[in-house]
Order: sequence, then C-alpha cells, then structure tokens
Amino acid sequence: MGAPIEFYFDFSSPYGYVASTLADDLGKRVGREVTWRPFLLGPVFKANGMAPLVDVPMKGDYSKHDFVRTARYYGVPFSLPAKFPIGAIAALRSFYWINDLDPAKAKAFAKAVYKAYFVDGQDISAADVVVPIAKSLGVDSDALAAALNDPAVKDRAKQEVEKIIGKGAFGSPFFIVDGESFWGTDRMAMLEEWVKRGGW
Amino acid sequence: MGAPIEFYFDFSSPYGYVASTLADDLGKRVGREVTWRPFLLGPVFKANGMAPLVDVPMKGDYSKHDFVRTARYYGVPFSLPAKFPIGAIAALRSFYWINDLDPAKAKAFAKAVYKAYFVDGQDISAADVVVPIAKSLGVDSDALAAALNDPAVKDRAKQEVEKIIGKGAFGSPFFIVDGESFWGTDRMAMLEEWVKRGGW
Repeated sequence: MGAPIEFYFDFSSPYGYVASTLADDLGKRVGREVTWRPFLLGPVFKANGMAPLVDVPMKGDYSKHDFVRTARYYGVPFSLPAKFPIGAIAALRSFYWINDLDPAKAKAFAKAVYKAYFVDGQDISAADVVVPIAKSLGVDSDALAAALNDPAVKDRAKQEVEKIIGKGAFGSPFFIVDGESFWGTDRMAMLEEWVKRGGW
Repeated sequence: MGAPIEFYFDFSSPYGYVASTLADDLGKRVGREVTWRPFLLGPVFKANGMAPLVDVPMKGDYSKHDFVRTARYYGVPFSLPAKFPIGAIAALRSFYWINDLDPAKAKAFAKAVYKAYFVDGQDISAADVVVPIAKSLGVDSDALAAALNDPAVKDRAKQEVEKIIGKGAFGSPFFIVDGESFWGTDRMAMLEEWVKRGGW
C-alpha cells in the first residue's frame, strides 16, 4: 500500500463535509489509507486577503445554491445551517485530543460533527454541543471538557493547523497524496486518476 | 433542441482555454448549441475584492502547477505564457466586431487567439498580434484595425462585458444553461449531467 491520502478540511466547510462522505470510498478504490485532519480556513483567509465564499458579493448566492446542488449530485443529505460560516475551533481541539487516544474514534467524531452541523443544523461552534457528540461515541466527556480549557491542548491544535497551512492547504477540502495537492470536491476524480496512473 | 449553453470566458484564463477545447463536444453530446462569449475578469475582481489566482500568495504556485496538470489531464497542449495574466481587451473587442459579421468566424477567432496565447506564447494583449490572427481567418484586417479605435466598437464591447457580469459570471469558464450557472472546467461534468437529467 502506498502513502496515505492526506485529507484536510474545515468543520465549517460544506464542500469539506461532502468530501468527507466520499473520501474513504475513494481511498478503498485506489488502495490507500485516508488520514483525516481538520484545520481552520480563518488564518488562511486572513493571511491571503481572501474572504469566505458566501461573503464575496458575486460568489455568495452562487455558492449557497451550489452547496445544495453539489450535495444532491453526490446523494449526500445537506442543509445550510442558520449560523454559517462559524469558527469550529472547539471541534478542532476535540478532534486532536481524541485522536491522541484513538484515531478511529477521532474519525467517527469528525463524521458526527459534520452530520450535526450540515444535517441536523446544530451550532458546532459551541463546546457544549461538541462535547456531547464526543460522549455519544464513548469519549470521556468530563475529561474532554476539561481538556478544551487546557492551554497545552489549545497550543497542540494551533500547531496542527499551522503545520497543515505550512503544507500549502488553502481551501477545504484539500488533499495531498504522493506530494501532489488537490483542492476541492470537484478535483477528487482527478486525484483518483492521479493515484491510479501514478501521475501524468 | 433546447436552449443553448452559454459559455463565458476571459482570453487570459487558462481554465477558460481548456474549457474552450471541450465545450463544443459537450454541447454535441447533450444536443445543445454552445454560444461563445468572451468577457473580462478584471472588473469582476475589482468589484468583489478578488485577485487573479496567481497573485493570491498560497494559491499562486498551486494554480500554476494545476494549469499544466489540468491541461494534460484533458490532453490539451498548454504552456504558461511569459506575460500572464494580461488584459485581453483588444481580442475581446475584435471578437464582438467579427461576431456581428460572422458568428462562426468569431468562434474560430476565439480558438485561434487562445492557441496563440496558451500554445504559441504570443502576447495577445497587443492589437498588432490580434489583428493578424483575424486576418489569417479571412477577416478584413484594415477594417478591424480601424474598428479597434472606434469609440462605438469600444462601447459595444464594454456593454457586452457588463451584460455578462450582470448575469452573475464571476470566473472563467462560466456556463449558464436553462437558468443554471456552473463555474469552472471541473464543473463541466456536472453541467453535462444537469442537462441530461434536466436538473435534480
């Protein structure tokens, strides 16, 4: 088996959510593991003079329509949350804390957070929404709630985000495999071809 | 035959160029005419606080690599011109002037301009590069050269650009069919499905 497909996403990203429902199947088709790693687009936008899609005047309405259209295209349940976009830092810190204990559980947590936000419309920017999601997966919720206030846990999450941005990730979803970067749900077919053919 | 697929592009756009090599075949597959209309991204970027891809720090290197990778993926000859991006207003004005005389020739002109820029590396921002391209297609080059200095021709081109931006086009390529907008070469497969299925 070759190197894993690195899958980077923001919990507030509709395209990241759609990609999350497709990534593991893609990995199976090409015989690669998929490593899930959340990061934050906020610092990227700030450093690059970019804005969230829905805040760019001409892109806003197009994007909101396209989120729904894209989800339906892939057969994925989706509803744009009332509060959107959000800063998903509590979910991000939780992910890395859980990941240190149990990577499989961290992936299950990421899927559950995405579902809570983009299917059930819960405000996942709130720690008191995120912690019960982790609890439902068997995570020690008291320990997690305490960890979210631990400066070391905060710093750890910050370093992960910086590391991912340092790899060049500027959008969500963002994939890296065999040193090749792919941005966007609509590039997953190209990524798959790239791995199958070994590039071109 | 249903309504045409409206294809909007900037002559300075690599993805617009790649799309131009694929658009007519897509139209044939779904039984729709494709209307080619150049516009300018400059005013869109200015009005929306956006910048050309290659000028966004984190997107620049990715984009330059992706132009080449995307062209190879589709089997399209491509080389990033030394002077890039450019303001393609001479080519745009020429297109609309030719289009009033002979729409088929205008499309041939658009293809020749794209080839001159993205295959042969000519500086198509210059009128004295664009006019000979038109001449090689049988256009009256003296009349075209004169027209490029005609305020009415300039105004006509400006109005076309404003009309296209008024339809919501904010990137290149940009397609509209049956009232549905699609942005990007990598959305052409979705567009094709949309027309085939009549939406979803």
